[in-house]
Amino acid sequence: MTREPKVAVLAAGLFTRATAKTAIGVMRYAPYPVVAVIDPDHAGSAASERVGVGKGIPVVADVADAARLGADTVLIGTAAAGGRIPDSYRPFLADALRSGLEVWNGLHERVLEDPALREAAAAGNGRVRELREPPRELPIGGHRTPRPGATVVLTVGTDAAVGKMTASLEIAAALRRLGRTAAFVATGQTGIAIAGKGISVDAVVADFVAGATEEMVCEAAEGADWVIVEGQGALTHPGFSGVTMGLLHGAAPHLMVLCDDAARRVMKGYDREGLPVRDLRECVGIYELAASWRRPPGHPVAPVVAIAMNTGLLPDDAAARAAIAGAEQATGLPAADPIRDGTAGAERLARALIGARA
Amino acid sequence: MTREPKVAVLAAGLFTRATAKTAIGVMRYAPYPVVAVIDPDHAGSAASERVGVGKGIPVVADVADAARLGADTVLIGTAAAGGRIPDSYRPFLADALRSGLEVWNGLHERVLEDPALREAAAAGNGRVRELREPPRELPIGGHRTPRPGATVVLTVGTDAAVGKMTASLEIAAALRRLGRTAAFVATGQTGIAIAGKGISVDAVVADFVAGATEEMVCEAAEGADWVIVEGQGALTHPGFSGVTMGLLHGAAPHLMVLCDDAARRVMKGYDREGLPVRDLRECVGIYELAASWRRPPGHPVAPVVAIAMNTGLLPDDAAARAAIAGAEQATGLPAADPIRDGTAGAERLARALIGARA
Repeated sequence: MTREPKVAVLAAGLFTRATAKTAIGVMRYAPYPVVAVIDPDHAGSAASERVGVGKGIPVVADVADAARLGADTVLIGTAAAGGRIPDSYRPFLADALRSGLEVWNGLHERVLEDPALREAAAAGNGRVRELREPPRELPIGGHRTPRPGATVVLTVGTDAAVGKMTASLEIAAALRRLGRTAAFVATGQTGIAIAGKGISVDAVVADFVAGATEEMVCEAAEGADWVIVEGQGALTHPGFSGVTMGLLHGAAPHLMVLCDDAARRVMKGYDREGLPVRDLRECVGIYELAASWRRPPGHPVAPVVAIAMNTGLLPDDAAARAAIAGAEQATGLPAADPIRDGTAGAERLARALIGARA
Repeated sequence: MTREPKVAVLAAGLFTRATAKTAIGVMRYAPYPVVAVIDPDHAGSAASERVGVGKGIPVVADVADAARLGADTVLIGTAAAGGRIPDSYRPFLADALRSGLEVWNGLHERVLEDPALREAAAAGNGRVRELREPPRELPIGGHRTPRPGATVVLTVGTDAAVGKMTASLEIAAALRRLGRTAAFVATGQTGIAIAGKGISVDAVVADFVAGATEEMVCEAAEGADWVIVEGQGALTHPGFSGVTMGLLHGAAPHLMVLCDDAARRVMKGYDREGLPVRDLRECVGIYELAASWRRPPGHPVAPVVAIAMNTGLLPDDAAARAAIAGAEQATGLPAADPIRDGTAGAERLARALIGARA
């Protein structure tokens, strides 16, 4: 990014912890100022009251109010499976584009495919940054290896949307605090909005998921001894397992961190099907086994060495402590919640990684 | 397809068994006439001399010669990993488009993205059918199930390009000969060129591979008791495993047939890396396990019930017999080469499927 943007996050009608994953990630980690959240249903409140993060960021009713606070960019801050732009967002996006603001979109649907939005953009000279637009030229995976000496870590999950991006960012920061060079590799729209670069691997033509990941990993390994790759989906997710598999084989990690939402019992989006989340120990086995398939038989296993717990939806601290202790007991691995436990939590995970490579 | 095309297959310089997979598949199975193969290096010979199939189909030097034989369509008949149009093909494609012929392209790269080809098409009114162009609207997988009573069969492989499409087509035909209704679901460019419909799942945006597959399977199950889904890639393939995984979870098969090239020792394209093909028994376990991950724990396993052997590159019949017997011994499953063994071979595989559902 050439200038520092001032971002308003659009989450109209959907500004909740369950639905505003992108908004929360950006408010927590973006290196640029977030000046407002746009949600007329809660205008006048504070973002932190609604979702627990975004201290000092006001919720406003519309784009004009956000612009008055200095916003020059509107980021779509929510996502739904399928990746369509919610119809309720279109008037806000039209306002933004007509007023010359830039729109950042991380959904599969492209903003300028909507004729009304194309017209608004033309009228107001508003630009669009498609966070999920992949590069045009991508390689097939399996033919490059990162710089020797670099350690590649992939966060994997018991489900989609359990906190893999958060764990990745916190682990990279913890490794840096512990004196290591660490790069975060963004593989999804929120990570890209935060890091300013990356490839949304779920939006890549399927043949190139592994190749896109491998390319990012090799590039990151040139500049850092630790490459922390943001995971996507889950191998146990009926819709997204292909993305997860391509990412796993493309990253070809040395080590993995398994991420879990301690409150999740049923796979996200599969309540009707009643598909249970598999237990931690089984998931450790699944990822270690699947990672081995792209290697020759007998190649050393890429182990899961720590569990990143997301305890944000548990009722209280005691329940969280019990969940983290339970995870450690079930897997025999160190576990921590890098948000609830703060820097000490992420450092516990980072030390497990460092110890595994010592 | 509204009219019956007369197809010339373009394989200039690449008309060998190893490289002309699409040409061979189309010559063997297409329901429309293939009138010529275009390859100036071997003009004057017969297709069957070069690749063992295509009886009576001449190899010609250029598009004009193919047109004299009645061709109104030129199909790109070879494929390389990465999916670029070979530069050596561009003059032939320009000729075809400038002469008003239709071009069928199954590569990732789109024909009309080349300005010279776009110009030729405009000049000659030549049309392009992009076999790999996915539908614009696709669902997320995991939310639909096929008609109860339909049996979904997926062909899976020890590697890419081992004969999964061929096995699928032969098994579907054998099931029909045995009195069953059977549909073939095309998931790759050659299958689509043969069947006249389908979705090239490796060209779909990665998030939608499972959903695209599921949609095709559910549609096919409305009209047939047996749905035979063409597999892609391999879970042990470092580049394409994500596609394979999405297809596996999207198809959600009841039964699987494992396909193997008996002459293949190293994964295709990974000679430099020396990545060995895993043995049959291990691959059976890998696919059965991975298939189970999108199901609740305790759900009945979708078993691999037969092995489709491709013995075409073995030196002789004795070697083929030994390989097939070896596969049966290693896995305890019936094995056959549906090409070498003819209709009896495919029927052996089909009977294994019928027996598993009895």
